[in-house]
Amino acid sequence: MQFHHHGYVSADPRVLPAAGVGLDRPEDLPEEVDVLIIGAGPAGVIAAAQLAQFPGITTRLVERRPDRLPLGQADGVQARSVETFAAFGFYEQITAEAYRIMEMAFWEPDPHHPEDIVRTSRPRDDDRGISEFPHLVVNQARVLDYFLEAAANGPARLRPDYGWELTDLAVGGADESHPVTVTLRGAGPHEGAERTVRARYVVGCDGAHSAVRDAIGCVPVGDKSNHAWGVLDVLAVTDFPDVRTKCAIRSHDGGNVLLIPREGGFLVRWYVDLGVVPDDDDGAIRRTPLAEIVARANAIIHPYTLDVRDVPWHSVYEVGHRVTDRFDDVPLDQVGTREPHVFITGDACHTHSAKAGQGMNVSMQDGWNIAWKLGHVLSGLAPQSLLSTYSAERQVVARNLIDFDRQWSTLMATKPEDLPDPGYLAEYYVRSSEFAFGFMTHYAPSSIVGDAEHQHLATGFPIGKRFKSAVVERVCDANRVHLGHHHRADGRWRVYAFADSPAAGEPSALADWAAWLASDPTSPLLRHTPPGADPGSVLDVKVVYQQDHTQMDNVVGVPGVFLPRTGPFGLIDYERVYATDPRDDVFEARGIDRGGVVVVVRPDQYVAAVLPLTARAELTAFFAGALLP
Amino acid sequence: MQFHHHGYVSADPRVLPAAGVGLDRPEDLPEEVDVLIIGAGPAGVIAAAQLAQFPGITTRLVERRPDRLPLGQADGVQARSVETFAAFGFYEQITAEAYRIMEMAFWEPDPHHPEDIVRTSRPRDDDRGISEFPHLVVNQARVLDYFLEAAANGPARLRPDYGWELTDLAVGGADESHPVTVTLRGAGPHEGAERTVRARYVVGCDGAHSAVRDAIGCVPVGDKSNHAWGVLDVLAVTDFPDVRTKCAIRSHDGGNVLLIPREGGFLVRWYVDLGVVPDDDDGAIRRTPLAEIVARANAIIHPYTLDVRDVPWHSVYEVGHRVTDRFDDVPLDQVGTREPHVFITGDACHTHSAKAGQGMNVSMQDGWNIAWKLGHVLSGLAPQSLLSTYSAERQVVARNLIDFDRQWSTLMATKPEDLPDPGYLAEYYVRSSEFAFGFMTHYAPSSIVGDAEHQHLATGFPIGKRFKSAVVERVCDANRVHLGHHHRADGRWRVYAFADSPAAGEPSALADWAAWLASDPTSPLLRHTPPGADPGSVLDVKVVYQQDHTQMDNVVGVPGVFLPRTGPFGLIDYERVYATDPRDDVFEARGIDRGGVVVVVRPDQYVAAVLPLTARAELTAFFAGALLP
Ligand SMILES: Cc1cc2nc3c(=O)[nH]c(=O)nc-3n(C[C@H](O)[C@H](O)[C@H](O)COP(=O)(O)OP(=O)(O)OC[C@H]3O[C@@H](n4cnc5c(N)ncnc54)[C@H](O)[C@@H]3O)c2cc1C
Ligand SMILES: Cc1cc2nc3c(=O)[nH]c(=O)nc-3n(C[C@H](O)[C@H](O)[C@H](O)COP(=O)(O)OP(=O)(O)OC[C@H]3O[C@@H](n4cnc5c(N)ncnc54)[C@H](O)[C@@H]3O)c2cc1C
Repeated sequence: MQFHHHGYVSADPRVLPAAGVGLDRPEDLPEEVDVLIIGAGPAGVIAAAQLAQFPGITTRLVERRPDRLPLGQADGVQARSVETFAAFGFYEQITAEAYRIMEMAFWEPDPHHPEDIVRTSRPRDDDRGISEFPHLVVNQARVLDYFLEAAANGPARLRPDYGWELTDLAVGGADESHPVTVTLRGAGPHEGAERTVRARYVVGCDGAHSAVRDAIGCVPVGDKSNHAWGVLDVLAVTDFPDVRTKCAIRSHDGGNVLLIPREGGFLVRWYVDLGVVPDDDDGAIRRTPLAEIVARANAIIHPYTLDVRDVPWHSVYEVGHRVTDRFDDVPLDQVGTREPHVFITGDACHTHSAKAGQGMNVSMQDGWNIAWKLGHVLSGLAPQSLLSTYSAERQVVARNLIDFDRQWSTLMATKPEDLPDPGYLAEYYVRSSEFAFGFMTHYAPSSIVGDAEHQHLATGFPIGKRFKSAVVERVCDANRVHLGHHHRADGRWRVYAFADSPAAGEPSALADWAAWLASDPTSPLLRHTPPGADPGSVLDVKVVYQQDHTQMDNVVGVPGVFLPRTGPFGLIDYERVYATDPRDDVFEARGIDRGGVVVVVRPDQYVAAVLPLTARAELTAFFAGALLP
Repeated sequence: MQFHHHGYVSADPRVLPAAGVGLDRPEDLPEEVDVLIIGAGPAGVIAAAQLAQFPGITTRLVERRPDRLPLGQADGVQARSVETFAAFGFYEQITAEAYRIMEMAFWEPDPHHPEDIVRTSRPRDDDRGISEFPHLVVNQARVLDYFLEAAANGPARLRPDYGWELTDLAVGGADESHPVTVTLRGAGPHEGAERTVRARYVVGCDGAHSAVRDAIGCVPVGDKSNHAWGVLDVLAVTDFPDVRTKCAIRSHDGGNVLLIPREGGFLVRWYVDLGVVPDDDDGAIRRTPLAEIVARANAIIHPYTLDVRDVPWHSVYEVGHRVTDRFDDVPLDQVGTREPHVFITGDACHTHSAKAGQGMNVSMQDGWNIAWKLGHVLSGLAPQSLLSTYSAERQVVARNLIDFDRQWSTLMATKPEDLPDPGYLAEYYVRSSEFAFGFMTHYAPSSIVGDAEHQHLATGFPIGKRFKSAVVERVCDANRVHLGHHHRADGRWRVYAFADSPAAGEPSALADWAAWLASDPTSPLLRHTPPGADPGSVLDVKVVYQQDHTQMDNVVGVPGVFLPRTGPFGLIDYERVYATDPRDDVFEARGIDRGGVVVVVRPDQYVAAVLPLTARAELTAFFAGALLP
């Protein structure tokens, strides 16, 4: 965490100094905004937290609920989401209050007494070191709280406007600069009121029944019918021994339960499968009484019993596998001919079962993806065409997710005797965990993802996938740090220069590259840093040497471009210079060529380019596509 | 973190439900209180945070400042303090914003060019694995903020009363139940007002010029004269390469500087030695101009230069080595004949140089020590005689501290050529680090510290020293956790049963002990748990098995006393049952006898007793001395 460089910060450094639109933010909804976010679910709040970093952009977040979400909904937080929490600055806090999944237990009918269940296996959750981040369970309500805190602490001081429901949205009209007109109906505190807001852009984060989606004519495609689960958050006494372990439990009569221990040590969530919703159901399944769901759970876990003492929340969660044909307002036959102004995210564009615990997670990545792009375009850093990459990138992810979830749900519903072998389900779970954890997203080449020509120079940083962090030593203070964890969600690109073998101060390819970057007219650092801004304000450039820090004379000999002057006092920023931790050599760990490599990472932590230190024109060209001069 | 067991907690679980005096806490200072804490420095705020855990006790914290401390004063946070932060629930947050000391650099005159300094060594800060907690640097102001947040979040909802200065204190008088009368003068918001408050107990945390100390006639003993340092928090540009490393720098002309990099990556604190204050100084040294101190620093770091751009805070810190003869209001010749009602803590009873970075740290341990004892006595859990152990325990610590600090200051002031060898200072630093980190406190036997008869059964848990945590596996959810980190500052005793070798469910000494503890009339658990309270509310009993968790059938076979029923719903608390982590066997790591051992730990994390599982009468007797029936 870096602060004090613009003067002494006395109180919580997480509260950034208010700036721009955050200085005199009106309490009341303005008539005109740059970005209007509809819905404060996971997708909406992350978009708000990201846009709050841009003090030049007026963003408002409207939500029809009268207040914060108190409980319920999703709770599974995959490692990629926890990595994302780190980027937004609240990983430590939320982890401290969450349940951490270490193992998953599988229970099946006892072959000898099929009416009883027995534990068949208990694989470790992340057996392959996919991520240094944990797999957590914590209520969606708390996730929203933390993102909203981050949004309120951003320079733009973004706070949700509760009690406003979107009833209508239209694109086009007289005001070319604010082409989207939104009609809002007051709810809760604003009951009876109505408002019209004109926006440059609207982000629809309004969930499975999205009105924004309908207004722009996106069509959900997929299953005809829904699947239903009874979802219970219970405080109960049970003799089922694995009640504090995540479990998939299947009984001899085809019943199945997904059991998720919850934060705090006592609460447990039970997903009781209620099967496919008949076409003529007419809401009947949603009226399944609580007692019936509890009885079903009891039957499934026989010979164990569940004695429910309190049910803070329950619901029948009914959902089908569906993805919309596009994620913005540009009809498929007009793509490339005009720019989008309305986007949909999260459940508004893709729905699927809760079995794989993906709903909240994928929605957050949607929200982050569109938000930094809007931040760049509206700040004048990037061309408007950047916005088209949102639908292109995220629709593929959603489709893969649906396929994965369908496979997993089908497997869970398959009778044990119809599976290849008894351990099949557990094996599949472990095998597919990289996907489930959120790390299989792989963006295709575009204006912000380069090609794979030089991928062999850094095999551990696949272009288009998220930058997998590694441990390095910060030279100035000998701290062992995770390089990637210093990539905060501040809207900046990262450029990591992995040095060739000479030490700092000796002639090297790195030194030549640094000199070029510092002063050549084609240097992207010079071309894309706005006049008067700190050198690292758009491209955050760091260096990692092959030596360990004890082999260096601190930062002596390190080129000045890695020791940039920052803030009104022109202070030296020492936290851009890293050494290799000999116990955990990043060059080995990530397959980095000893001749030196430049790795470019997007504001949302996806690897955008891998280039040799000599490929200067390519680096210039890459940024010329991603950023405006 | 455990919650939800008394019903669903929707918002931040760190905010405990208000209870008792926290339910209708008056804004205004009452005329009568149980405990009045004077001064919201490190000692006062930790005492407040601890007492806020006791909803039956009316505690108020008065402070003459009109508001929170904005900046300045101490900044070195030793590992024991960070461990303490963990107990108060904010270790993760404060660590994320602090500077972490990994190495200390020693700079001395270059033997060839004595007017220039050169780096002579750079030892690692904790080279001996003394603690799993880091050594941090973070401003005192933030430490106070976090403790005050913990105090406000406690069931008693304790918030400081700013703007009240103690002017007088008298013990005795008509009101026997509230024998201490305190006169307060309004300051800041209360300018012009005056108040009298009667208290059962007063804790003087009012710093080096303590009025409470003077009122109870405690006499500071020690150095006649003070030593002075110019202390600067600067934002500067320098070519001194180690400016982000903690440094001790000594120049050829006897000048010396202690350089402490500060949180945030840019701020640096410089302690510039101004020497012994002459007897006839009359405040002159305190008026040393900033420019002169900066010039002195520049001269000392020659050939490097310091170009100061901003000085958020500076002060001349003048202090001598002194300890008061006692830490409470009972004159030495009356000890044992009457109970104390007034206590002094922190700088009020001991002062010393800033060189070893101890001031804030030792003060916090003082405050914690007295606060849990007051909590126990006022809640009726422990006899009043417990309060005498405060002065007895902490005065020894203070004396050792003064001795240590004097040695360290003398060494720092010794000319390099007069030391045994050039690396002597660095070696001494490493050698003495267990003391400096705060882990050499070793309480003598008393009503709350048992004797060492069975120490050989657990050599890694020395009786009277703080419980050094170790890694174990929580059985219910396979989480690898630090046993000691679950010991929060909730005022409870811990009883750890390390099992003998049989597995759970088999006959064993542990099973016999558990049966005794659960139901025998002499069981301390039955004797000391108030009627109607949760079984773990005074004694938190945990078990650690020798098996690893994969060798156990979850908690099946574990005695019920380790799976206590808790809260209004009678839920099972699964977080008392641990297994041994095979990668880091706690029995090996802490020298625990394989025949099983009981380790008793005080509410402030000090080991109180080590006993075999068969020593039941001894365990009963121990708690009969420490707690009321
Ligand atoms: C009742 C319920 C139970 C669920 N249970 C589970 C579960 O057990 N497990 C699981 O994994 N997932 C569950 N989900 C799904 C999971 O919560 C979603 O996948 C996830 O929240 C998607 O995030 P989102 O931001 O896209 O949408 P949401 O979280 O649905 O957020 C949409 C927000 O938009 C607001 N909104 C909607 N329409 C408007 C409008 N017109 N104007 C203004 N605001 C509007 C809503 O009030 C809501 O706050 C549940 C969802 C719901 C609604
Ligand atoms: C100006 C200053 C600079 C310091 N600089 C350093 C440093 O650079 N490095 C270092 O290690 N240590 C430094 N210290 C010492 C360090 O801060 C102390 O060791 C530590 O704070 C001791 O904690 P404490 O709680 O005992 O007392 P303090 O932190 O001194 O707190 C005492 C509190 O009591 C209040 N108070 C005093 N009298 C009354 C009264 N009559 N009525 C009501 N309230 C009262 C004060 O306003 C203060 O808030 C400094 C102290 C001071 C005062």
